[in-house]
Amino acid sequence: MAQTTPNHTQTVCGWAAHDPSSKVTPYTFKRRENGINDVTIKILYCGICHGDIHQVRNDWGVTMHEITGLITKVGSNETKFKVGDRVGVGCLAASCLDCELCKDSQENYCEQMQLTYNGIFWDGSITYGGYSKMLVADHRYVVHVPENLPMDAAAPLLCAGITVFCPLKDNNMLDLPGKRIGVIGLGGLGHVAVKFGKALGHHVTVISTSPSKEKEAKDCLGADDFIVSSDAAQMKAGKRSLDFILDTVSAYHSLGPYLELLKVNGTLVIVGVPDKPMDLPSFPLIFGKRVVKGSFIGSIKELQEMMDMCGKYNIMCDIETITLDKINEALGRLAKNDVKYRFVIDIDAEKP
Amino acid sequence: MAQTTPNHTQTVCGWAAHDPSSKVTPYTFKRRENGINDVTIKILYCGICHGDIHQVRNDWGVTMHEITGLITKVGSNETKFKVGDRVGVGCLAASCLDCELCKDSQENYCEQMQLTYNGIFWDGSITYGGYSKMLVADHRYVVHVPENLPMDAAAPLLCAGITVFCPLKDNNMLDLPGKRIGVIGLGGLGHVAVKFGKALGHHVTVISTSPSKEKEAKDCLGADDFIVSSDAAQMKAGKRSLDFILDTVSAYHSLGPYLELLKVNGTLVIVGVPDKPMDLPSFPLIFGKRVVKGSFIGSIKELQEMMDMCGKYNIMCDIETITLDKINEALGRLAKNDVKYRFVIDIDAEKP
Repeated sequence: MAQTTPNHTQTVCGWAAHDPSSKVTPYTFKRRENGINDVTIKILYCGICHGDIHQVRNDWGVTMHEITGLITKVGSNETKFKVGDRVGVGCLAASCLDCELCKDSQENYCEQMQLTYNGIFWDGSITYGGYSKMLVADHRYVVHVPENLPMDAAAPLLCAGITVFCPLKDNNMLDLPGKRIGVIGLGGLGHVAVKFGKALGHHVTVISTSPSKEKEAKDCLGADDFIVSSDAAQMKAGKRSLDFILDTVSAYHSLGPYLELLKVNGTLVIVGVPDKPMDLPSFPLIFGKRVVKGSFIGSIKELQEMMDMCGKYNIMCDIETITLDKINEALGRLAKNDVKYRFVIDIDAEKP
Repeated sequence: MAQTTPNHTQTVCGWAAHDPSSKVTPYTFKRRENGINDVTIKILYCGICHGDIHQVRNDWGVTMHEITGLITKVGSNETKFKVGDRVGVGCLAASCLDCELCKDSQENYCEQMQLTYNGIFWDGSITYGGYSKMLVADHRYVVHVPENLPMDAAAPLLCAGITVFCPLKDNNMLDLPGKRIGVIGLGGLGHVAVKFGKALGHHVTVISTSPSKEKEAKDCLGADDFIVSSDAAQMKAGKRSLDFILDTVSAYHSLGPYLELLKVNGTLVIVGVPDKPMDLPSFPLIFGKRVVKGSFIGSIKELQEMMDMCGKYNIMCDIETITLDKINEALGRLAKNDVKYRFVIDIDAEKP
């Protein structure tokens, strides 16, 4: 479809797999000309998100929406960015700009919202994400990257960072320190959540199925406490102890045991996307007046707020940077959760 | 246990079943003397709540916590009640009075909270509920019944009423009219929820598996709209249309289709107690930033607030009043949901 859109005249080198089992290989496609509201970005880094969302949607399981780069061209309507600016592009490529949600800076929940990959842009073209050297993006979906953050370690903040930032913000964790926060799962999302929680002055407990992660959680990420979720005694000891839990686990699980860890009136926010429904027993929900919420990335306004907060506290993702010739190897390791905590591709490196 | 508690000297006639299959028959037991903080109540009416909570707890499935009556004796420490007062007793018989929750008028979530039936009172005795002619209750767990409410139709408010009142209160539905509210299930809880919603100035949609209930919901209860939950077209048409949903269904169900009816940021409160976990798919939760909450009855302060509101708006339950000789027949009909909408026993009637 993109190839036939009239203004899509720029040939771009990219990398993609065409079905879930195939390897990622180079290919060429077209991007649109830089429009009056667009900026053109030379892509430097792209994080690899094991997008559970996309697995569920029968996509190929790895997506391209954690992009950092430099502005190379600016549309005539655009004043927020100038050539050379360090910028980031996350999941959002477009939204209707007209509904109540868009007008209220909640465009991430707009019904017409389109993603940076496999989305349909306003001109009818398909969005291709960040595994390429260059991207044309509407400036309304681009954010500044603070000067003190390295462009590689900042890239995953555009998805993992914003995903855990918004629940903290929405539940008053940005302004009221000293809460007892739990983080379920210590992966790409969870490790950033621990960093945010500590930077914001909270007591952070990591809840994980892997006892082996305790040392890392405490020594490297600064977690205060660690609960092995399969240990009934530890779970019982933690009963009614937490104000707030961020559930980052994408595998199927019952919410019951985790809800018991919350105080009365406590809140658990789900940001992982298990591909089958979770079990929600009513007892711990009702008898503890507890709350389960969902949250999906954030608006562009919130994305900039999150980036600025990361700049202020010098928070970035722990990453392993790879070149494109290593991508298939990285995908293999990713399937085994063998990465601390995100792979980032150095798109601008010479090889392959 | 109660029989051996020293101050339990008052012999009372009551009615009970001793296992789930047996019939309810008269028996005698002991109640405590009226203590300095107690009031003695001559029971007039007791609602039959098909307490799902108790089924799950392997109790006998019908409980005794919707009690109205007249004060006959007042303890020396007590100034709130006088002999002859019209009062109600709900689910709560005791709590620790000392924890953060008790001090904050949230004693219904106190870890030491004891119910009016099958609970353990402070003196170590078992609480026996309301299927008897007389009850001794601590005055802190008794409320006034407004003069304009009949004592029989007011009885179920003490459980069904408070159960649906608190979610409305906690989600700002008492002060902000004009919201779009959904009520899932039209039974004992649901029919009161519809009355509350309309009295408070909201647009109320009943969501039910039974198309046959539409006429009743609209003509008798004043509902504005009706959605048959098994009708995919109706459910699709209702997508993103409601601000708030009260889920009163106790049978197992998936929350997914109902969550889709909520607007972005909408809230569904669960007050039914399915005996197995509900399915909670993450997609509608996450992509609509929706909220699922639990709620369990209410505090005594809230119980009085609810009663006063019912007095103000003249709200009562639709009931079918029976005498005790009809109780086994009523239980049989209750098992088939054949009642509009609550049975209330006339405890003070002569027979049997």
